Amino acid sequence: MVGIIMGSLSDRKVMQEAADILTELGVAWEMDIVSAHRTPEKMVDYAKTARNRGLRVIIAGAGGAAHLPGMVASLTTLPVIGVPVKSSNSMDGWDSVLSILQMPAGVPVATMALDGARNAGILAAQIVGTSDAEVARQLAQFKENLKEKVADMSRQLMDNE
Amino acid sequence: MVGIIMGSLSDRKVMQEAADILTELGVAWEMDIVSAHRTPEKMVDYAKTARNRGLRVIIAGAGGAAHLPGMVASLTTLPVIGVPVKSSNSMDGWDSVLSILQMPAGVPVATMALDGARNAGILAAQIVGTSDAEVARQLAQFKENLKEKVADMSRQLMDNE
Amino acid sequence: MVGIIMGSLSDRKVMQEAADILTELGVAWEMDIVSAHRTPEKMVDYAKTARNRGLRVIIAGAGGAAHLPGMVASLTTLPVIGVPVKSSNSMDGWDSVLSILQMPAGVPVATMALDGARNAGILAAQIVGTSDAEVARQLAQFKENLKEKVADMSRQLMDNE
Amino acid sequence: MVGIIMGSLSDRKVMQEAADILTELGVAWEMDIVSAHRTPEKMVDYAKTARNRGLRVIIAGAGGAAHLPGMVASLTTLPVIGVPVKSSNSMDGWDSVLSILQMPAGVPVATMALDGARNAGILAAQIVGTSDAEVARQLAQFKENLKEKVADMSRQLMDNE
Amino acid sequence: MVGIIMGSLSDRKVMQEAADILTELGVAWEMDIVSAHRTPEKMVDYAKTARNRGLRVIIAGAGGAAHLPGMVASLTTLPVIGVPVKSSNSMDGWDSVLSILQMPAGVPVATMALDGARNAGILAAQIVGTSDAEVARQLAQFKENLKEKVADMSRQLMDNE
Amino acid sequence: MVGIIMGSLSDRKVMQEAADILTELGVAWEMDIVSAHRTPEKMVDYAKTARNRGLRVIIAGAGGAAHLPGMVASLTTLPVIGVPVKSSNSMDGWDSVLSILQMPAGVPVATMALDGARNAGILAAQIVGTSDAEVARQLAQFKENLKEKVADMSRQLMDNE
Amino acid sequence: MVGIIMGSLSDRKVMQEAADILTELGVAWEMDIVSAHRTPEKMVDYAKTARNRGLRVIIAGAGGAAHLPGMVASLTTLPVIGVPVKSSNSMDGWDSVLSILQMPAGVPVATMALDGARNAGILAAQIVGTSDAEVARQLAQFKENLKEKVADMSRQLMDNE
Amino acid sequence: MVGIIMGSLSDRKVMQEAADILTELGVAWEMDIVSAHRTPEKMVDYAKTARNRGLRVIIAGAGGAAHLPGMVASLTTLPVIGVPVKSSNSMDGWDSVLSILQMPAGVPVATMALDGARNAGILAAQIVGTSDAEVARQLAQFKENLKEKVADMSRQLMDNE
Repeated sequence: MVGIIMGSLSDRKVMQEAADILTELGVAWEMDIVSAHRTPEKMVDYAKTARNRGLRVIIAGAGGAAHLPGMVASLTTLPVIGVPVKSSNSMDGWDSVLSILQMPAGVPVATMALDGARNAGILAAQIVGTSDAEVARQLAQFKENLKEKVADMSRQLMDNE
Repeated sequence: MVGIIMGSLSDRKVMQEAADILTELGVAWEMDIVSAHRTPEKMVDYAKTARNRGLRVIIAGAGGAAHLPGMVASLTTLPVIGVPVKSSNSMDGWDSVLSILQMPAGVPVATMALDGARNAGILAAQIVGTSDAEVARQLAQFKENLKEKVADMSRQLMDNE
Repeated sequence: MVGIIMGSLSDRKVMQEAADILTELGVAWEMDIVSAHRTPEKMVDYAKTARNRGLRVIIAGAGGAAHLPGMVASLTTLPVIGVPVKSSNSMDGWDSVLSILQMPAGVPVATMALDGARNAGILAAQIVGTSDAEVARQLAQFKENLKEKVADMSRQLMDNE
Repeated sequence: MVGIIMGSLSDRKVMQEAADILTELGVAWEMDIVSAHRTPEKMVDYAKTARNRGLRVIIAGAGGAAHLPGMVASLTTLPVIGVPVKSSNSMDGWDSVLSILQMPAGVPVATMALDGARNAGILAAQIVGTSDAEVARQLAQFKENLKEKVADMSRQLMDNE
Repeated sequence: MVGIIMGSLSDRKVMQEAADILTELGVAWEMDIVSAHRTPEKMVDYAKTARNRGLRVIIAGAGGAAHLPGMVASLTTLPVIGVPVKSSNSMDGWDSVLSILQMPAGVPVATMALDGARNAGILAAQIVGTSDAEVARQLAQFKENLKEKVADMSRQLMDNE
Repeated sequence: MVGIIMGSLSDRKVMQEAADILTELGVAWEMDIVSAHRTPEKMVDYAKTARNRGLRVIIAGAGGAAHLPGMVASLTTLPVIGVPVKSSNSMDGWDSVLSILQMPAGVPVATMALDGARNAGILAAQIVGTSDAEVARQLAQFKENLKEKVADMSRQLMDNE
Repeated sequence: MVGIIMGSLSDRKVMQEAADILTELGVAWEMDIVSAHRTPEKMVDYAKTARNRGLRVIIAGAGGAAHLPGMVASLTTLPVIGVPVKSSNSMDGWDSVLSILQMPAGVPVATMALDGARNAGILAAQIVGTSDAEVARQLAQFKENLKEKVADMSRQLMDNE
Repeated sequence: MVGIIMGSLSDRKVMQEAADILTELGVAWEMDIVSAHRTPEKMVDYAKTARNRGLRVIIAGAGGAAHLPGMVASLTTLPVIGVPVKSSNSMDGWDSVLSILQMPAGVPVATMALDGARNAGILAAQIVGTSDAEVARQLAQFKENLKEKVADMSRQLMDNE
């Protein structure tokens, strides 16, 4: 089970992409709103109980001074994947990227590209796939599909000319 | 009483400047190591008990993905002053500046310049000085001294020519 | 009483948020247009008489080469909160952020996030709340409401699925 | 088994930290020089055979226009952790950070902080620890040690005063 | 013959400008979709056979963590021209610019301005023109036309007043 | 007469270059320490009396949140030349550059390159030279000398080979 | 007479503001299209004959890799004012700002804010005003008007409440 | 023959690497000091006569507001390779990179990494190699040597353990 959390409902549009690809790859997930700055106690509780509740990976999305992924990582030994979300008042996303990426030694966060929730889902599946052969098989198939899409585009381009 | 905290002893060289100017301005302070990422529970405890322990302002210094000032601010209603510290592996300090500055609506952190611990001490004294006439008087005197130092430099320059 | 100033009426849309949250938290405020570059004398007068006119905190918003917060801070010993405003011709807001944040030692400005006027109002209330128990109580209530809003969003998310 | 690769021997000083913490956490590793730009065929071979050779995670470090982590990720379904290395001619590390972080949808790289090889090792152990109870136990112990170090620093600070 | 490749059909709008100016300058071209991250094998094959298939220059466009130009350059001794494409989720184009520009010593990519596909076409023609007198003549004529357009604008401005 | 001012004696090393080239070009100058943040009243007085004291151009150097050039420009109708000084705690000079450059419409500052005090002196001489034929003649000679230095370097390079 | 030049008619919308304020301040001007990259010979001719044709200041606007202001400055001893223009394909204006600002010692360009053509016109008038009492008088009046506009806005704000 | 030019002898340390690799690859070169800003007429002459003097490629290095590569490109139809040089007063090299890279449509400059003179030499050889089989053969050999060096480092790493 993969836990997907974000600080506000307004991040959901981006974060849903993580859930969608996990479903596609056959990995179960749950989703909740957990804010580092507005519900710090809920965040502490969420992170500390995560492993025992059966989570294997946590995906956390946040914008601006994005503290949620790093704080969750400080409270669990599960792998934490951080998704910088480009919010309206942010400094073009540099704030969320650097707030998530530049964690001090001892507490890693696996940082994704700006708004890279889909890749967060894929990485979570890859982590699950290190010990789940069926998920690994789904990922191999997914990679084949990526190639197929490029081949399709290549054919379209040729037909187009 | 002003609380001064930082994530590591290596930040002390910078943060001591806050303590020194507070002493100079006649404001009491205490200092401790509190790490958002390595001691999240201590941080929660520190912030939640701060007001009742008699603190009136908290100064928090941190580098890299600097979550300490913002997380403390999320756990107290005291004013929190954040000092971005330029650490060796940081992205030239942009990471700590943006991690502290770009707080979401609802949870302010009074952000200082990079390595601006001395100004953090002065701002803390100004806050105390909003209701403490003696500290306000010290600040007025301090401002006079700043002028005097410029006048000194101006004289030096003239003598020098 | 909190003084709210800005360089131009065009900044008002952003700065009104500071006034609104102050009203909500039960803190009195006044607002005026004071431009560092177009009315330097008015600015000097405003800052120098601020404490005696009964102001306890000044909030100053400005965009581009934003000199208003720092210049006001140079002319008073009251705490000054700076709000970088993202104006149309600015370098994505970096100019106003750095012009306000990077003050030299001796003259602090409590810098907020880009367009962070709401947080400026909250910080001003926190400063007032260091010596006003009723405002402190309002702030504690405000913090509870933040949590409640997240709980609401969490419920919406669950219902949504 | 965790595979650690880098484009040049000059990156080893940074990347060795990943190996050291893996050893400390009881996770086996191997290390090699694999350059995306100078040995593209070796890179393709390394990545395509990684899963079958028994690797469960790949850590790839690179500087400048850092293509190694992303290219390896394009050639395997294993989780790939990227470490941006700050090299001498780089644009202050922004080039390596952005070249590794901003991967397109479909091909994630778990990006670490600049020169964050130690965190790469910890994340690799966390991934292994999702299905290896002993490694998970080591990680829990490691987290306790982090707290202990802060407590030590806190005591030093007190003694120091 | 100039080869024009890009990672996705969505880059075509930008990259078509390279093809158009090549046609105008009398240089033959071919175009295909080749993705470094989704079709790494196709990319290797494309680059390794390029010279023998009669290509003399390769133009590669890519956005985000743009690895296509650099990886192609690692696999051929033909001149490779890289066009950073500003895609929707990019960090304002800085990611693609730095990923293409900051190649390590040994493997150059001739980097163009952001979305500078037209210039990529002109440079490719200039390269062809180093040994093809007719193309060189076309380029000289093209330069004359640039001057003529400015003269036209100058006249428009005068008439306008 | 050209007025040269700066916020601190520590800026003198950079700013002396403006004085030196002015002397070389036969233009009189005076120099003083005037701080926007520490001596705002002196700054107001300096700027308001500048024209009547016979100054024709003012050169102002400052680092960090560099308000001196812009504030002086707000208080006089003389041309003001701003020199961003790279100070130790600055954000690599971006703060002083943007604080001086991004002035609002109505109050220009002629901004020089980072630490570009020599060019500030030359520009001041060019302004004086718009109505002083002897200074204009000196500038023409200076331009010839620049060419001569390149010719010298060119000869050195040839001899060297 | 002030010369206003720009590389393309598309820059006119921005650059016309320089002309308009010059007219308002009673300073004559002329305008032309001169491109550093497309009409280098015209540019050389324009700059070399400028002083003798009676120009006293040159205002040059350009976007992207903006070479026009600096190249003109290399060819004349008149003061040259550079206006960075934010064009559509630019890197958010950073390219034009840095290309104009960072001139080497010996060849100054008085750089304005991004799209700061109005300030370029005012600075040109200030330069003319160093030796033309009537223009100086107009500038003093203009400064009074700036104050008046702020007073108006201040009254509007009061009425509004 | 490849022409290598730079604005100052101080750039030679960097630019010599272009000459060295050209010698290694069997391509003739000449080198000179040509400054866009100090010797604009020499630059115009150099660029306009380049093709007729037998040059096939021009490599131009420059720092700060680096106008040399772009201006030369505006004056010839030969391919021009630009090398941004990181000089002491530059904005960390961003100024030279953007001044060279962001050329307008019509006038390409093949931009190299910061201080990437060695790659400029290799690209020049690749351009020559499009019509010179012996140089193409040298480049293929050079590519083999790159692989060999990585294999050597790989062996060193193994021996080291």
